[in-house]
Amino acid sequence: MDYILLTPGPTPLPPSVYKAMSEPILHHRTSEFGEQFSRALEDLKYVYRTKGEVLMMTASGTGAMESAVVNLLSPGDKALVHQTGAFGERFTKIARAYGLEPVVVDEVWGHAADAEKLRAALKKNPGLKAVFFQHTDTSTGVVNDLAGLAAVVREAQPDALVVVDSISGLGAEELEMDAWGLDVVITGSQKGLMAPPGLAFAALSERAWRAVEAAKLPRFYFDWRTMRRSLPNKETPYTPAVTLVAAQAEALRLIREEGIENVWKRTAALAAYTRAEVQKMGLSLFAKDPADILTAVNLPAGVDGKKLIKDIRVTEHISIAGGQLHLDGKIVRIAHMGWIKKADVDAGLKALAKRLQPTHA
Amino acid sequence: MDYILLTPGPTPLPPSVYKAMSEPILHHRTSEFGEQFSRALEDLKYVYRTKGEVLMMTASGTGAMESAVVNLLSPGDKALVHQTGAFGERFTKIARAYGLEPVVVDEVWGHAADAEKLRAALKKNPGLKAVFFQHTDTSTGVVNDLAGLAAVVREAQPDALVVVDSISGLGAEELEMDAWGLDVVITGSQKGLMAPPGLAFAALSERAWRAVEAAKLPRFYFDWRTMRRSLPNKETPYTPAVTLVAAQAEALRLIREEGIENVWKRTAALAAYTRAEVQKMGLSLFAKDPADILTAVNLPAGVDGKKLIKDIRVTEHISIAGGQLHLDGKIVRIAHMGWIKKADVDAGLKALAKRLQPTHA
Repeated sequence: MDYILLTPGPTPLPPSVYKAMSEPILHHRTSEFGEQFSRALEDLKYVYRTKGEVLMMTASGTGAMESAVVNLLSPGDKALVHQTGAFGERFTKIARAYGLEPVVVDEVWGHAADAEKLRAALKKNPGLKAVFFQHTDTSTGVVNDLAGLAAVVREAQPDALVVVDSISGLGAEELEMDAWGLDVVITGSQKGLMAPPGLAFAALSERAWRAVEAAKLPRFYFDWRTMRRSLPNKETPYTPAVTLVAAQAEALRLIREEGIENVWKRTAALAAYTRAEVQKMGLSLFAKDPADILTAVNLPAGVDGKKLIKDIRVTEHISIAGGQLHLDGKIVRIAHMGWIKKADVDAGLKALAKRLQPTHA
Repeated sequence: MDYILLTPGPTPLPPSVYKAMSEPILHHRTSEFGEQFSRALEDLKYVYRTKGEVLMMTASGTGAMESAVVNLLSPGDKALVHQTGAFGERFTKIARAYGLEPVVVDEVWGHAADAEKLRAALKKNPGLKAVFFQHTDTSTGVVNDLAGLAAVVREAQPDALVVVDSISGLGAEELEMDAWGLDVVITGSQKGLMAPPGLAFAALSERAWRAVEAAKLPRFYFDWRTMRRSLPNKETPYTPAVTLVAAQAEALRLIREEGIENVWKRTAALAAYTRAEVQKMGLSLFAKDPADILTAVNLPAGVDGKKLIKDIRVTEHISIAGGQLHLDGKIVRIAHMGWIKKADVDAGLKALAKRLQPTHA
């Protein structure tokens, strides 16, 4: 059965990505796999806009988040987590699971990070080892001004590492890792990168590598040092998800063919179109600082969002995401990243309109 | 290009497993995915021969090994690792990465675990929290008598948990989790389970769960408690590798259709055939206690195993594994698990014979 996926990961896959996954499976200690793997990492550097090394993990995005915490920090280290939604909170939970107590700066959901609030928190909490940000938070549909925030960190605490979760942003929303001075940027395969879920990536600056060598939190599977040592052999320390690597290599080829700036522009245009259409329907936007990766839409009072979404999925085979945590049932989220097309968004908007404006149906 | 894979993971995939992966991708918070996911876990209980719960992780097998260490142990805990090859050593390395110093019992590579040696080690080291075993070690091609070893542990230290790495064994070599009294058995998707690499599993006894609740090592992504809490909703805590779950569900359907006892018998017959053919060729077996999952073969002195394997792969498109660590270049390993057929093994043996017996070619 064919579904229209408007969910913010997994996102729909291009046909050639499906095809790449159905090629006969490769063994991971062969030159054929090595070529595919190292080509994917090279193409990721292009997408990240970095000259630094990129590492690959077989894991969900949350695994990459944990890898950032355990590879950069030591017991007793001070860190700050900037939370703009459900995914920011995850960094805090991971740090706590490892015995750390990070400083938390919370934004009202739907608002991007406020530079002045960050500056004040940095002033109040000297000696931070790292500051953790979200690029885009899929739970709220906001985008943070990473260039500006990184500059604030550099000015207030030049030694603090700038660590970014761009699991939902990379490959869809503009990001310039080196130019913006980001030290670590993690991401996942299943959103802007147009591959199935199951692979996660981390890109590191040179000073991030120095922190990794010095960090003392325990780690084995997620140890970035082991991964780096395997890179010259074009391999991973442990058996990787080879079919997903084949898929990811093909999806990155498509991104490179289109050009990353064109991908950003296309995603931004689809987001602008969706925001306009939603407002024409008389609905309001949840995010005050909306991202291009997805549009979060407030549902009218009295509408049961969970029922609405299920009805659309069951009867029309269109998957739209609802709200997370306290937003459950109150908003819907329509994604624009990757292979999602205007026709898909139109189908989703039509399904929404039919149910929210029954007299006009 | 079509390859014959005789490597012990990834192994070749059945055609219907490729097909399952190329179905339109499902969102992981839908009832459609939930049904597929919970069916796979139910079928895994059948393969594990357990009434206990089975958990799924998006990770390599090494991730599942780490999950066993961090979910069962606390700082200062005493544990014993029984090493019969390269993969046994991995448990030791993981435990050390988390600050533990396990007792290590080493067998000569190629020999299965000796019950008397284990009994002596258990006597000498009272108060063990867990004893870690390999079911089959793919680096040496041996199989351990888990039923017997578990009985030795129960007799000597009834409170010690019996933890088994059956990444390469499950679904190919006989294993009776409940009947043999195994507390934790981990495995991976890419060997006997006939799916691509990227998923790992853990099955737990009730007393293993009590240990998990009490354990104090830090964990987040690999936290079994979080995974268990998601089971009633037929979901995973974080975005799983959905295409691999589709593949795994289909592969398990095939195993159930054939019957697990028939799978064991078929694998054993292919292994017996291979051992006989190899010896007819004048070659000797490396393992003194050979497993059914693969046959490790000594190469004649003076043969460069690495060159041999590369030559076979490049010219005949047959992937045979070499030796690991100190066995590199000295042995070859021909796998029998999963979808590997007699015709594949025959092609591999012919390619070997041609190169090792040039006058008979």
